[in-house]
Amino acid sequence: MSVTAPKGFTAAGVAAGIKESGGPDLALVVNGGPSRAAAGVFTANRVKAAPVVWSEQVLKGGRVSAVVLNSGGANACTGPRGFQDTHATAERAAEALGHSAGEVAVASTGLIGTLLPMDKLLPGVQQAAEALSAHGGEKAAIAIKTTDTVHKTAVREGTGGWTVGGMAKGAGMLAPGLATMLVVLTTDADLDSAALDSALRSATRTTFDRIDSDGCMSTNDTVLLLASGAAGTVPDEAEFTEAVRAVCDDLGQQLIRDAEGASKDIRIEVTGALTEEEAVTVGRTVARSNLLKCALHGEDPNWGRVLSAIGTTDATFDPDRLSVAVNGVWVCRDGSFGEDRDLVDMRYREVRITADLAAGDAGAVIWTNDLTADYVHENSAYSS
Amino acid sequence: MSVTAPKGFTAAGVAAGIKESGGPDLALVVNGGPSRAAAGVFTANRVKAAPVVWSEQVLKGGRVSAVVLNSGGANACTGPRGFQDTHATAERAAEALGHSAGEVAVASTGLIGTLLPMDKLLPGVQQAAEALSAHGGEKAAIAIKTTDTVHKTAVREGTGGWTVGGMAKGAGMLAPGLATMLVVLTTDADLDSAALDSALRSATRTTFDRIDSDGCMSTNDTVLLLASGAAGTVPDEAEFTEAVRAVCDDLGQQLIRDAEGASKDIRIEVTGALTEEEAVTVGRTVARSNLLKCALHGEDPNWGRVLSAIGTTDATFDPDRLSVAVNGVWVCRDGSFGEDRDLVDMRYREVRITADLAAGDAGAVIWTNDLTADYVHENSAYSS
Repeated sequence: MSVTAPKGFTAAGVAAGIKESGGPDLALVVNGGPSRAAAGVFTANRVKAAPVVWSEQVLKGGRVSAVVLNSGGANACTGPRGFQDTHATAERAAEALGHSAGEVAVASTGLIGTLLPMDKLLPGVQQAAEALSAHGGEKAAIAIKTTDTVHKTAVREGTGGWTVGGMAKGAGMLAPGLATMLVVLTTDADLDSAALDSALRSATRTTFDRIDSDGCMSTNDTVLLLASGAAGTVPDEAEFTEAVRAVCDDLGQQLIRDAEGASKDIRIEVTGALTEEEAVTVGRTVARSNLLKCALHGEDPNWGRVLSAIGTTDATFDPDRLSVAVNGVWVCRDGSFGEDRDLVDMRYREVRITADLAAGDAGAVIWTNDLTADYVHENSAYSS
Repeated sequence: MSVTAPKGFTAAGVAAGIKESGGPDLALVVNGGPSRAAAGVFTANRVKAAPVVWSEQVLKGGRVSAVVLNSGGANACTGPRGFQDTHATAERAAEALGHSAGEVAVASTGLIGTLLPMDKLLPGVQQAAEALSAHGGEKAAIAIKTTDTVHKTAVREGTGGWTVGGMAKGAGMLAPGLATMLVVLTTDADLDSAALDSALRSATRTTFDRIDSDGCMSTNDTVLLLASGAAGTVPDEAEFTEAVRAVCDDLGQQLIRDAEGASKDIRIEVTGALTEEEAVTVGRTVARSNLLKCALHGEDPNWGRVLSAIGTTDATFDPDRLSVAVNGVWVCRDGSFGEDRDLVDMRYREVRITADLAAGDAGAVIWTNDLTADYVHENSAYSS
């Protein structure tokens, strides 16, 4: 059900002809109200795609009536013409739906540096508007896929009859401050944009912001949360935030499990940190060690590569007190070898690394993937 | 001729049995004087191998009579026992040579987290001491190889009869603040340790510190510069520094060309930066983009991945003024597409990327490699 699980939303996914494959490549999500409050978080990359620049402006108004999303082209690094194209896309959707363009968000994903085929995209918007359905959530989720092998949706229900639904795309270039990730979350709970913003930032901080598949940050990351108020319920703030977090966490896990070419999902838990921030820094640095990612691909519990990554950070620790467990076996104790590494069972897809800094009580979990020949292949061939 | 090109030095390389392959794995370089002034730079990793901790102490005295280097084991993360082993190695060399252990530097490379087989290493030191020769430079360079496919040496001669020679090993884990790199430089010029230190830091700052094969910093990086004074010449400081820089640059280029699994050597030149420091930051960030490294492996001049990497830095630039050339073709101008990417000839091993920040007059060059299936294979299988 995806984004159409909450009441008040319709969606569609169509093949507009943007992708050369002829597959679905344009999605439309429409908030039928009565409320149109919204919040969004966007890439921290300073090189921002045109649709990100546009949608950040839209979100400043706190209201979103519709979201147009396309795969098949990122519309990033496309200059003034690219921005005009995004604007025209919002205008066409607004016209078809009878809304204001200033309330239409746009999100794009695909290759950087090429203009979108507007002669195909604009008729696609019209086609999607005509195909809108209260059961269109799955089709929308399918239309935003790029190298994703599966479409990603999640739903949670709250006390008193409200629901949070969501869809996501992203299969590589996942990194801090989000990922090449387009996410639309919807709810029929009744909250204003400030409450939505607070819930969304709280939720993404410990979910999407802590998956880091390949250390590369996209120009197009967009996560939107739209509220229709159609359930007529004002939810408990904490319960609502937790529901949004749960949907984000669910979608984030789906992203990691579908990361390009990956054969392992790697959970890096940092414990004993002085602060949560230091734990995140250490976790992210370990997650970005190509040498570690290769070793884990080879099912080698090479803890030396964990320590050598930790050693490049400025987090608080004493090198002689660092300990590392791989899948529960403490192969490194106090900066030196510990239990026998042959005890580590590496056969499963999930690998759990625990790094204890022995410096405090804070911790954090970062998810990443292994580095594989398939990743290299997929990303060598992407644009050619 | 390597480290024995300058007068006053002898060297040897032997098979001590540390490596399971039975290949050469222990090198000894001896400074016969009359001077024994020396300088060293070491890894910035906070997790330092025992030989790094030891040799940093030795270098504080500014004198080095001999260097023992072994491949087949890093002696990193090996606790107090590992440090005792390094100490014992220096003691054994000192005994064999009639020097003080406090003037014997030790360097190790190989797998982290395992103790060295001292029953083989110590007799190996004795064996190497007996094999010392004024023609032993090549053998020493061969004995320090790990996954290197070739041994690396370089020599430069100065005005007035002095020489700088050097050897290096390192084929992966090359990163900032050096690399898994062991380097011994020698000279028969007559300089005190302060002058050597100044020349060495100046030289490494723009050579070894600017090659970044895979973003991973080692626990064992060591670069030593030993002066015998045997040429009886006090060189011009600028000329000497330039000779040391040239030897470091030559060795650094050999390291990049032999990087694990690489099929491309990538020269990233950042121009138009506000400061050299910002240029280095941008260059290093671009050098670490796995997505870019994969694209270049696939001979795809994917400049969007250059811009998305630059956008993650806090360097001074306007995203709409960034320009990027690949092999001389300005595929990106002012933040958008420029010349036709089909004009870029990607057939050669060397790829030249120029990123113009249009923010000032400073610049820097960083070298890296592409990311290949062979890199993944080599680093998945390394310890198993």
